[in-house]
Amino acid sequence: MTGLDHLYAVVLAGGEGNRFWPLSRRTAPKQFLRIAGRRTLLQQTIGRVAPPLPPERVLIVTNRAYQDDVRWQLRESLRRADAVHLLLEPSARNTAPALAMAAFRLLQIDPEAVMLVLPSDHAISPVSALWRTIRRALPLAASGALVTFGIVPAEPTSAYGYIQRGAAVQGRGYRIARFIEKPPLPAARRLIKQGGCYWNSGLFLWRAAALLEELCRHAPRFAAPLAVMKRAHGTAREAAVIERSFGRMPELSIDYAVMERTARAVVVPADFRWSDLGSLTALSELAPKDRSENVTVGDVISLDTADSILYGGRRLLAAIGLRDMVVVDTPDALLVCPKARAQEVKQIVGELKRRNSSHYHLPHAETRPWGSFAVLEEGPSFKVKRLVINPHARLSLQMHHHRSEHWVVVAGRARIRHGHRTYDLHANESTYIPKGTKHRIENRTQRPLEIIEVQSGSYVGEDDIVRFSDDYKREG
Amino acid sequence: MTGLDHLYAVVLAGGEGNRFWPLSRRTAPKQFLRIAGRRTLLQQTIGRVAPPLPPERVLIVTNRAYQDDVRWQLRESLRRADAVHLLLEPSARNTAPALAMAAFRLLQIDPEAVMLVLPSDHAISPVSALWRTIRRALPLAASGALVTFGIVPAEPTSAYGYIQRGAAVQGRGYRIARFIEKPPLPAARRLIKQGGCYWNSGLFLWRAAALLEELCRHAPRFAAPLAVMKRAHGTAREAAVIERSFGRMPELSIDYAVMERTARAVVVPADFRWSDLGSLTALSELAPKDRSENVTVGDVISLDTADSILYGGRRLLAAIGLRDMVVVDTPDALLVCPKARAQEVKQIVGELKRRNSSHYHLPHAETRPWGSFAVLEEGPSFKVKRLVINPHARLSLQMHHHRSEHWVVVAGRARIRHGHRTYDLHANESTYIPKGTKHRIENRTQRPLEIIEVQSGSYVGEDDIVRFSDDYKREG
Repeated sequence: MTGLDHLYAVVLAGGEGNRFWPLSRRTAPKQFLRIAGRRTLLQQTIGRVAPPLPPERVLIVTNRAYQDDVRWQLRESLRRADAVHLLLEPSARNTAPALAMAAFRLLQIDPEAVMLVLPSDHAISPVSALWRTIRRALPLAASGALVTFGIVPAEPTSAYGYIQRGAAVQGRGYRIARFIEKPPLPAARRLIKQGGCYWNSGLFLWRAAALLEELCRHAPRFAAPLAVMKRAHGTAREAAVIERSFGRMPELSIDYAVMERTARAVVVPADFRWSDLGSLTALSELAPKDRSENVTVGDVISLDTADSILYGGRRLLAAIGLRDMVVVDTPDALLVCPKARAQEVKQIVGELKRRNSSHYHLPHAETRPWGSFAVLEEGPSFKVKRLVINPHARLSLQMHHHRSEHWVVVAGRARIRHGHRTYDLHANESTYIPKGTKHRIENRTQRPLEIIEVQSGSYVGEDDIVRFSDDYKREG
Repeated sequence: MTGLDHLYAVVLAGGEGNRFWPLSRRTAPKQFLRIAGRRTLLQQTIGRVAPPLPPERVLIVTNRAYQDDVRWQLRESLRRADAVHLLLEPSARNTAPALAMAAFRLLQIDPEAVMLVLPSDHAISPVSALWRTIRRALPLAASGALVTFGIVPAEPTSAYGYIQRGAAVQGRGYRIARFIEKPPLPAARRLIKQGGCYWNSGLFLWRAAALLEELCRHAPRFAAPLAVMKRAHGTAREAAVIERSFGRMPELSIDYAVMERTARAVVVPADFRWSDLGSLTALSELAPKDRSENVTVGDVISLDTADSILYGGRRLLAAIGLRDMVVVDTPDALLVCPKARAQEVKQIVGELKRRNSSHYHLPHAETRPWGSFAVLEEGPSFKVKRLVINPHARLSLQMHHHRSEHWVVVAGRARIRHGHRTYDLHANESTYIPKGTKHRIENRTQRPLEIIEVQSGSYVGEDDIVRFSDDYKREG
């Protein structure tokens, strides 16, 4: 096989991205954020593979909770987006179960399927080098190898695992001598000095059938659930069986379950630059730097500050005398730490999770298929939001059981559906939607519509919504 | 003189407090802030002297722009607050003109007046020690000395000027051998080692007549304006003459104009602890510390962080691995710097002033006699505010030329005056006040009233207000 005829991209988009807090939150993980530029990391990932692949040959594995986000991010950036396959995990169970399910699904579509596995929240450039590397690896995968892409280390770091190469294979790659877990910095330096070592990227290429063979051989507890799924294929109970089977697969990484054990593992050195964006310090790789090597985003004033990440939002960020610091400011939470300690943000996230804090769960500003909203203020029985509705977009026809909504148009013109009535609101006009009333906001103009919404009622949670009709096919 | 019969407190409250940015702003300088605790620094300063002094014996010198703030802060904290004298500077012109005007005014009231001069934005404790020091100094002032209070240095610092003492006077104080401008740190160490040195506090005690004599002797350019003022006293043109004369006085500090030149200067060592709160690091002296010697205010999570100031607001502040850092977070601006660099915040303020930035001028949240408001969001033609109206308080009866206002009550009950109508609004009810309509919000209940206000119109600046009636006697 030399063409791309049986090649499928499998994009892993179920991660929670805790290490990017406070930019990422449980309901807005890293892959769905527009961290630098107009497109989200997921959209950038899809954009690297489709084209050349048609949307029918893209499969996205994600958590059930994120399906709406994935669907409309696809629609926003891709033609014929609905042709992309979605595989929904009932819960997060590491990469081996996710990839087993993906391989199983692809084999139903195409017994010759070759899977290109891409995490959705990594940085890769240039795209041409990615494809050069894929084409170099394709003949190896076609002949049954399980290929992992190895990144030529740019510097010694303890942030990544390493792969030590063995004998050359077909002049395209190398057998794998050993996998090395994230080493301490001195060990990383020794590895790089001795040569023949690569960063373990989490990008793979293999025949779906080859993966399942090796998975069942080296992690036999996958065999029974896969066999049950195969038997249920095409029957009425297939969906239920798949869900149950997924829950029975051991929660292992694909490296641990297969790659570190199989004799068919091959590493192909990558031509591209890569980062797993594993901590906020990776913002340096996503955004341009000033003369003092600072990354600054937003309204920033700095004096004698260098080698720092100053990621502001809507507010002014003033920095004096900082070196190698990270300051990330979001409307509801702020992080300050030295670059060298940025990994420890996961401890903060752990603490917020224990407290069941909204700073863990919810982003302050959320992008929606119809535009965006930001929470300006919250109290026990009210919430104030700014809504921006894109030209020719509309929210779902909806109803709330527990809250009323006051809307003041501050820019643009709104078409309001209010029960059985329909009317327009211009800037400086307001209306009131009592709880229990069906309503919809629509922007039928060429320019953005901005509305200040004051919700009040006994309960103002986002989940108090009944959708009757939705242009973006969201559920619930 | 041994009693307090002719003693007057002169409180200097015209400062702009740039070094406390982003907590202080041009329209909300340091002395008017509730930095730690319930009372503002001005209220704390007044509270130290009245009692024992009655309000008639307090004179506050402030900028004309701050008179409303001073008046209602007095009313909030003092009985018979309207008896306090206010001396309004048309512009900020350093301490010598301000104290010359104050002395002139006091001599009209009481030819024997003795002035205790207190900046309004310093920390002093305990009050009993302040009064012990004042009583020790009073006989010196009565006999014609110009007394400055010297603070026993707690540590070598280049943040303060020093006073070296000479011969003892009456066993109560010392002649002044020399004034030393803020010295470099090594020089400060030598001064402290040699002994007999004090920090120059900016607190003074003298007969008003003695001050004017020495001022005219050592800074003769004050003599003519003072003579003109004296001649105009009691005439119709007095106010205009005073204003013009003030503008003609040289813009000098009282130290430079008098204290460093007069033979009548005496330093009295202070028994009290003192800080001029000259930079944000002084927050350490105003707020309690945790076990790691951090000052934390607001919602703060910290890991391995020590000796730092973590001054948060409504948002979560997360800190990892910080040492000797200052993080001050306000709703519209954030500052991060090492403690040792906190003085440089004035350079940030200078830059903001050049840009005519709202971050220089305006605080995000403002306290008002009737409660407080915070700006939640602003656009070119709208502004969203949260208003909190105290029990039994009401805003002025007012009107706006350029903006309409939408109000949604989110807590409590509002009595609304709307043109000639009066009605109540309960939680989850809203109303609309078109531009040009007289209106007033009143809270006639026992609990706070919270309103979300959406302003919209061609201009939404704070100065578009016509007040017809105001419980707090504010102008404009």
